[in-house]
Amino acid sequence: MQMLGLIRKKRDGGEHSPGELAWLVQGITSGRLPDYQVAAWCMAVYFQGMSPREVKSFTLEMAASGEQLDLSALPQPVIDKHSSGGVGDKTTLVLAPLIAAAGVPVCKMSGRGLGHTGGTIDKLESITGFRVELSREEFIRQARAIGIALTAQSEELCPADKILYALRDATGTVESIPLIAASIMSKKLAGGAGGFVLDVKVGNGAFMKDLEEAEVLAQLMVAIGKGTGKETVAVLTGMDQPLGRAAGNALEVREAIAFLRGETTPDLLEVSLALGTQMLKLAGVVASQEEGREKLRRLLFSGRGLEVFAQWVAAQGGDPRVVDKPELLPAAPVVRPVFSPGKGFVGGMAADLLGQVVTDLGAGRKRKEDIIDPAVGLVFRKKPGEPVEPGEPLVEIHARTEKQATEAGRAVLQAIKVTPEPPSFPKPLIYGYVV
Amino acid sequence: MQMLGLIRKKRDGGEHSPGELAWLVQGITSGRLPDYQVAAWCMAVYFQGMSPREVKSFTLEMAASGEQLDLSALPQPVIDKHSSGGVGDKTTLVLAPLIAAAGVPVCKMSGRGLGHTGGTIDKLESITGFRVELSREEFIRQARAIGIALTAQSEELCPADKILYALRDATGTVESIPLIAASIMSKKLAGGAGGFVLDVKVGNGAFMKDLEEAEVLAQLMVAIGKGTGKETVAVLTGMDQPLGRAAGNALEVREAIAFLRGETTPDLLEVSLALGTQMLKLAGVVASQEEGREKLRRLLFSGRGLEVFAQWVAAQGGDPRVVDKPELLPAAPVVRPVFSPGKGFVGGMAADLLGQVVTDLGAGRKRKEDIIDPAVGLVFRKKPGEPVEPGEPLVEIHARTEKQATEAGRAVLQAIKVTPEPPSFPKPLIYGYVV
Repeated sequence: MQMLGLIRKKRDGGEHSPGELAWLVQGITSGRLPDYQVAAWCMAVYFQGMSPREVKSFTLEMAASGEQLDLSALPQPVIDKHSSGGVGDKTTLVLAPLIAAAGVPVCKMSGRGLGHTGGTIDKLESITGFRVELSREEFIRQARAIGIALTAQSEELCPADKILYALRDATGTVESIPLIAASIMSKKLAGGAGGFVLDVKVGNGAFMKDLEEAEVLAQLMVAIGKGTGKETVAVLTGMDQPLGRAAGNALEVREAIAFLRGETTPDLLEVSLALGTQMLKLAGVVASQEEGREKLRRLLFSGRGLEVFAQWVAAQGGDPRVVDKPELLPAAPVVRPVFSPGKGFVGGMAADLLGQVVTDLGAGRKRKEDIIDPAVGLVFRKKPGEPVEPGEPLVEIHARTEKQATEAGRAVLQAIKVTPEPPSFPKPLIYGYVV
Repeated sequence: MQMLGLIRKKRDGGEHSPGELAWLVQGITSGRLPDYQVAAWCMAVYFQGMSPREVKSFTLEMAASGEQLDLSALPQPVIDKHSSGGVGDKTTLVLAPLIAAAGVPVCKMSGRGLGHTGGTIDKLESITGFRVELSREEFIRQARAIGIALTAQSEELCPADKILYALRDATGTVESIPLIAASIMSKKLAGGAGGFVLDVKVGNGAFMKDLEEAEVLAQLMVAIGKGTGKETVAVLTGMDQPLGRAAGNALEVREAIAFLRGETTPDLLEVSLALGTQMLKLAGVVASQEEGREKLRRLLFSGRGLEVFAQWVAAQGGDPRVVDKPELLPAAPVVRPVFSPGKGFVGGMAADLLGQVVTDLGAGRKRKEDIIDPAVGLVFRKKPGEPVEPGEPLVEIHARTEKQATEAGRAVLQAIKVTPEPPSFPKPLIYGYVV
């Protein structure tokens, strides 16, 4: 087989055979294929797409390109959740303990990734002592013992995807729906779960800005999951404002703890219940949405979720006192409010711009090798639709330096509108389900 | 400027500014741009094309990426001819002396290239002693002295094109009309001529199989030439059968000498007159096609062209006796006829298959580093439309070994049809002109 032939075939709109895709993925993994040929192929895929059959084969080959987790030692199948990422998205922090509290094992690998803040493991690392690098044995043992374990994504997981993603990132071929679907689902499949709930975010703060495109992506990922025999559901959720009241690493852990204590914000609660219910349904623990929401609410407001969270922190070496004393979390030296310029209602919050502010404060990574600052970020004192008085704080900036706080303050005022009337058509939080 | 931004711009159908294209070509030439980014950009160009303005800027930047020949020491502007290549195409060998005989200087760089046979310089090298590597001074001095000089294409000519072409060749992006046009025209422009006649071949033995596509390419190249202030004409010529009676290196030199002696074949004569007339018109030496054809015929049938050819061979160190004794040219040890399988007329000759036979005999290069065999090739004893008796030779195979001759014989019979009736609709030799 020759790579040039495969490039031409895709360029001319042809369909690759499973054998061709296996050969391609092996060539990427081994480094045998020159990156310029793989780059040209990616751009051809960008323009010509992939058939569902191609995407499924490609995903399975990428999943098989490295380590594949065996979770069969757990008493029942794991239901994994994936989010396509957004500003202030801490649903894993609140859902993992609630799902575990419902008796469904949580045994999850999580990436660090690039983004406005770090990934879930970066957030958890802001808790003193929290170990995110568990051995396979520790990982499974802990999940069996307390029903919940989370570890950093193995370097050996989907090496083909790692190589391909870096190349796509440098060649303008990230934005290809079949390549996105294959990248996400290959890592999910290699993670060994028995079912998947996919949170596909759509809006100006999400990777997918457009609902129709997000639906196409969701349908493709659900088809891949089901095509490999795994129950898969996607939930299309809105990302036109930050989720909840904090964006940052320690700040989000702090919000998650408050949430599990019952101090919820409506949007984070709604999205968490929607996703969590689907997870419980796939696990066979509840029969209906109503039953699922009811069960999760009970576990949340009874404090059972917070207990599991504390157990989890302790099991992974973290300081469990953080649950009662969130002030033990890293704190930024400079905390400055941004005041409302007038009287009225918070209209829109440009999630993309706010995400950029959070990154600029040092909470996220622009490059893989960047070190994130756990303490910095934004706290949203007002959310869209809430009334505000002149001089009342809209946002609290947590910064490393005065200069960064000043710059962030200026940018925040560009991102948040205060209008005389409440916003009339708030964008939906849940757009729909793909099953 | 960032390459990723340029890739995305082209991917999304945008138009590059002249500054962007200058930056891109400089990045390719210096090796600063990673080849995977350039490859992705080429594939985006394949799908999105380039505006005429972009192609012109890109071509000029590539022409300026290396040495640019200064032919101003010659008494009048050089009119250069370019052929997109075909089987048996020896028009440069016959036209160069005829044009020089008409008083228009011929001062030409020629590539070795890949193809069924070598390029013009490979063919000339089959003459004992012929030097194709002239210094700039020798080159210009000879053109001034005898009106004709030809040298191998400088390694310093269009380095950006050299790098880009190698990458396109490996990434399925050769077949992009704007990239083809820019590649050809950048080398022409760097060659320093004052006007260009472009022979765009179309047919199964040509790079362009389709007339419409060939027209688009011709129009684009003419627009580039004119856009840079050079008179440019394209002639669309047929390549559905080999041109003339020989394909091979020494075999074509032999045919060119016979031609200049007056032993012409109709198709080679027709194409040579069509191209040569355009060259004379651009040079201002003749006013009409009729005048041009008449002048060229006179120079040809008076033997004046052959005299110039002999002078030219002598000036570049070759043995001029070859003009009277073509048997001094390298000869293949094995010469075998291929007999007609029946009585009738030669119908079609698949130029692509015959070109492949010639390459397999060793006359061409598959890779740049291949060494060509000057002696081998095919002589077409019959051309389409000619009557043939059973057992009469159709083709003469000139091979290095018996085995190669046998294999070539089998392949030749696949490529040439003998039919009971003469072919009713012969394909045209000249499809038209783009001015």
